[in-house]
Amino acid sequence: MAKPLIECVPNFSEGRNQDLINTIVDPFKRKKRCILLDQRADEDHNRLVVSLVGEPGPLQDALMEACLVAIENIDMEKHRGGHPRIGAVDVIPFVPLRNISMDECVEIAREFGRHFNAKTGVPVYFYEEAALRPDRRGLEVIRKGQYEALKREISNPERHPDVGEPSLHPTAGATVIGARKFLIAFNVNLATPDVNIAKQIAKAVRASSGGMCHVKGIGLALESRGITQVSMNITDYEKNALYRVVELIRFEAKRWGVPIIETEVYGMIPAAALIDSASYYMQITEFDSSQVIELALLDKLGEAP
Amino acid sequence: MAKPLIECVPNFSEGRNQDLINTIVDPFKRKKRCILLDQRADEDHNRLVVSLVGEPGPLQDALMEACLVAIENIDMEKHRGGHPRIGAVDVIPFVPLRNISMDECVEIAREFGRHFNAKTGVPVYFYEEAALRPDRRGLEVIRKGQYEALKREISNPERHPDVGEPSLHPTAGATVIGARKFLIAFNVNLATPDVNIAKQIAKAVRASSGGMCHVKGIGLALESRGITQVSMNITDYEKNALYRVVELIRFEAKRWGVPIIETEVYGMIPAAALIDSASYYMQITEFDSSQVIELALLDKLGEAP
Repeated sequence: MAKPLIECVPNFSEGRNQDLINTIVDPFKRKKRCILLDQRADEDHNRLVVSLVGEPGPLQDALMEACLVAIENIDMEKHRGGHPRIGAVDVIPFVPLRNISMDECVEIAREFGRHFNAKTGVPVYFYEEAALRPDRRGLEVIRKGQYEALKREISNPERHPDVGEPSLHPTAGATVIGARKFLIAFNVNLATPDVNIAKQIAKAVRASSGGMCHVKGIGLALESRGITQVSMNITDYEKNALYRVVELIRFEAKRWGVPIIETEVYGMIPAAALIDSASYYMQITEFDSSQVIELALLDKLGEAP
Repeated sequence: MAKPLIECVPNFSEGRNQDLINTIVDPFKRKKRCILLDQRADEDHNRLVVSLVGEPGPLQDALMEACLVAIENIDMEKHRGGHPRIGAVDVIPFVPLRNISMDECVEIAREFGRHFNAKTGVPVYFYEEAALRPDRRGLEVIRKGQYEALKREISNPERHPDVGEPSLHPTAGATVIGARKFLIAFNVNLATPDVNIAKQIAKAVRASSGGMCHVKGIGLALESRGITQVSMNITDYEKNALYRVVELIRFEAKRWGVPIIETEVYGMIPAAALIDSASYYMQITEFDSSQVIELALLDKLGEAP
């Protein structure tokens, strides 16, 4: 059996102290079978976003080490930054990548959460697919009012954590842990300077205004180029494939005679998202991802002892 | 630096004796950093085709071991089979996959060929990109008349080997070694029972009748389904992308009002071939394959000590 692979994107509330950032990511660099794909520290947000891929066991071991460093060194009482946050280890999503189901990732998130609380005393909320209460699927609900408000309101039963005591950790706050699908950032550039057209197309395509499920989007101007963009997050590329999003935008843009100039995948994307779209356009049937030589190789490497 | 990956598809002249087949492929199963993706033994052809992927060093080590087993145990004087062949180890193509150039694969092929001859005494011909004489690019030229004819003609300067003495090894014959691009087998099924239409489209698309370079193709009937097919080999998917082949066939088929029913990738395909086509249809610009999470992971795994 090919080994399971997950992605994990922990967010830590430290984007300025480079020494501390290095100490937090160090376990990811040292651990075998857990790979640090990307790390981005933002000074304005005062936040560190790390992208990890690996087998569930080694990945969680390295993650726990990194969390202990963050909890020991970040003081939320003194933390200031432009991004919503409630804790030193703010959010940890687990994402199924290969040879593992969403249900298994939910189980990983919940077990990691219990283990994390037992080890650190930091209260834990479960979100998205791992949510234990339906109203806690959305991160924004759990983080409402951020660290400062939650400090007062956590004793309110409505805001009790899912694991741990109903009071924040004195310096590390609380942590949100969950499981979600891979998130694709995808932009479509339009050959018009009229931002209203981009906004109307965004409205037609996004879920919040009645468009496609699992698509978030806004219309904006790229002033320096004199063009506009529909900027999107696709939160479930298996339910609403990339090609379907592109073709709906192409179709809507025709109303104004506006062509698509180009599109852009921002950041990482799973192979399946591109394969699926290639298969649609070229009408490839009965294709198995293990026919892709690099994916077969990845599975075989996972099998090695 | 991410480690280089190559594919290698050695063809051995044994497709019937299962014990011997197992002994030949055994080194590929034992070797680390060399992975046996596929093995197909054909009884009619009396031939074993193996698909390997790995780092050049370990892959060549395992390959040499397998070749020694084949040379020791296969007697070309007694070999009968439906596929053209000149030796116990008949053909060895090296294929660049990732983080390695064609020039480097040519160098690998030639060095392996010299080493192979020194160790076994089997004369070697270089073909395709590794050919030392332009008329030897094509396998069919080197294998003309097969083992039986070459045995007589190898002493003729025109047919002297590129490495070794101008006489066949008494039981193992000669071996063709080279470098080539990855070969994609790709079929397009047409909604017509008229095989003449498929044949005319194949003619329009293939290089041999003046169509697209690096495309081989024939038109044939899928009798049981009452439809027809353009069956192709794409010998350079970087020069003539999959999407271009599909769209040319779609365009030609319109002449008869015939739609494409479906297409089929037969066997393995490199990720880049699908990504490139997805990028065309969805107009994705400035995409780097390291944005594909599995490919980034594969590169990182290659870096591990």
